[in-house]
Amino acid sequence: MRASILTIGNELLKGRTVNTNFSHIGRVLTYAGYDVYRGIIVRDDPAEISWGITQCVGFSDLVVTSGGLGPTFDDMTVECISDALGLSLETNPEALSMIRSKYLAQNLELTPERMKMAILPRGSEPLPNPVGTAPGVLLRYRGKVIVILPGVPSEMKAILDSIIPRLKVPGRSYHEESIIIEGVMESAFAPVVAEEMKLSGGSVYIKSHPVSFELNNPVLEIEVSASAEDEAKARELVERALKHLKDRYEEIRGKQSH
Amino acid sequence: MRASILTIGNELLKGRTVNTNFSHIGRVLTYAGYDVYRGIIVRDDPAEISWGITQCVGFSDLVVTSGGLGPTFDDMTVECISDALGLSLETNPEALSMIRSKYLAQNLELTPERMKMAILPRGSEPLPNPVGTAPGVLLRYRGKVIVILPGVPSEMKAILDSIIPRLKVPGRSYHEESIIIEGVMESAFAPVVAEEMKLSGGSVYIKSHPVSFELNNPVLEIEVSASAEDEAKARELVERALKHLKDRYEEIRGKQSH
Repeated sequence: MRASILTIGNELLKGRTVNTNFSHIGRVLTYAGYDVYRGIIVRDDPAEISWGITQCVGFSDLVVTSGGLGPTFDDMTVECISDALGLSLETNPEALSMIRSKYLAQNLELTPERMKMAILPRGSEPLPNPVGTAPGVLLRYRGKVIVILPGVPSEMKAILDSIIPRLKVPGRSYHEESIIIEGVMESAFAPVVAEEMKLSGGSVYIKSHPVSFELNNPVLEIEVSASAEDEAKARELVERALKHLKDRYEEIRGKQSH
Repeated sequence: MRASILTIGNELLKGRTVNTNFSHIGRVLTYAGYDVYRGIIVRDDPAEISWGITQCVGFSDLVVTSGGLGPTFDDMTVECISDALGLSLETNPEALSMIRSKYLAQNLELTPERMKMAILPRGSEPLPNPVGTAPGVLLRYRGKVIVILPGVPSEMKAILDSIIPRLKVPGRSYHEESIIIEGVMESAFAPVVAEEMKLSGGSVYIKSHPVSFELNNPVLEIEVSASAEDEAKARELVERALKHLKDRYEEIRGKQSH
């Protein structure tokens, strides 16, 4: 099952905010059994949000968006997604009740800016926001699921956590482990990685990440990951590949010291 | 001038790595006078990299990519970009000499994996990598500039720094300031922000970022930014808007305390 992530906000493109939401969502979806296939980051601009969601929906079973759900003028994600997908908007009674109770508890009235957060595409399921006011949104569209989350990290995380059990891909588990190796250059270890990937017949994925400069006492992190029908099987695949890689590393080091 | 950023790497989509390269590049390009328009994150996969570069080139004057420049099997960015844009690859003598001198200095031979880093699209300008081995690449394509950088953050930063003076948009300066306001909810301040944006006739951009929960002693960061023909003018626009916002904030606080 393919997932994609659409994050929305000028501050992300300007680099004012490091996009930790993106990596958090990627992590959660990977462990939920998805192949996170593409990521798109767009401005707070209706045409851009529409472009982004259209791209994502085209190739994904699940799309998770983050950003643009609040009460301000540039919080326009829900409206733009509805526009792009040709869905009609209406005030969602359940969402309105969630929002009303948050403000009423503080003796605050429902202004137009606040009520805007309850206007959702027809058929949406509002997702309670335990940390903030804007509810998340779960939308089913042509056999796909779209989850619309706020951009405030604590709110995004709380809502995503609450629906992960429902999003989990059945019979698909992910496992990942890393080892650190020293004194072998990435370019020297590259053929070993390629060979092991081939040997595994595509069941494991291996990637080397240089931790320090290639030529001067190189340190490499070797990441090995696999997805399988259950956690035990995924772990077994990873550990078998790691053992081979460690053996080959020892061989290379042995040759170097002679 | 529009810029876009393409970052490449499964580890970014899986959320294993927080994409600090993206925000760094976004920051640098914003201050160099670009509107950073879109960001795309793709897997280490030829079809995906080709899709990503095609998307970016279509709407940008400048595209900066990061990732997939090293010696391993999954370092395929240069090849995929050439394929997607219909450019022919050749061993670039200048790049080969950069790479050879790095390895020769350590008495290391040029293996096929290492020589691969010198195979560039015809007409490329290799950009010296003071921190690692793979040179960056500057490519001119149909009136646009494409800059291809490694994924290792220190290497990416060093190469990007070295070309910023050449990439700078003439007569375009960016300025940004933020203030923190307390005790006014984002939803209550939203109309003030909208009004000030309107009043400025689009010359400033204002965005509020909730720092703490809307209902419980709300803290908001208000970001004001502007681009203008020089730094002084951009600063003046920002400071004028900030002054208006502060005045309105004091008014609201005054009313609240009565």
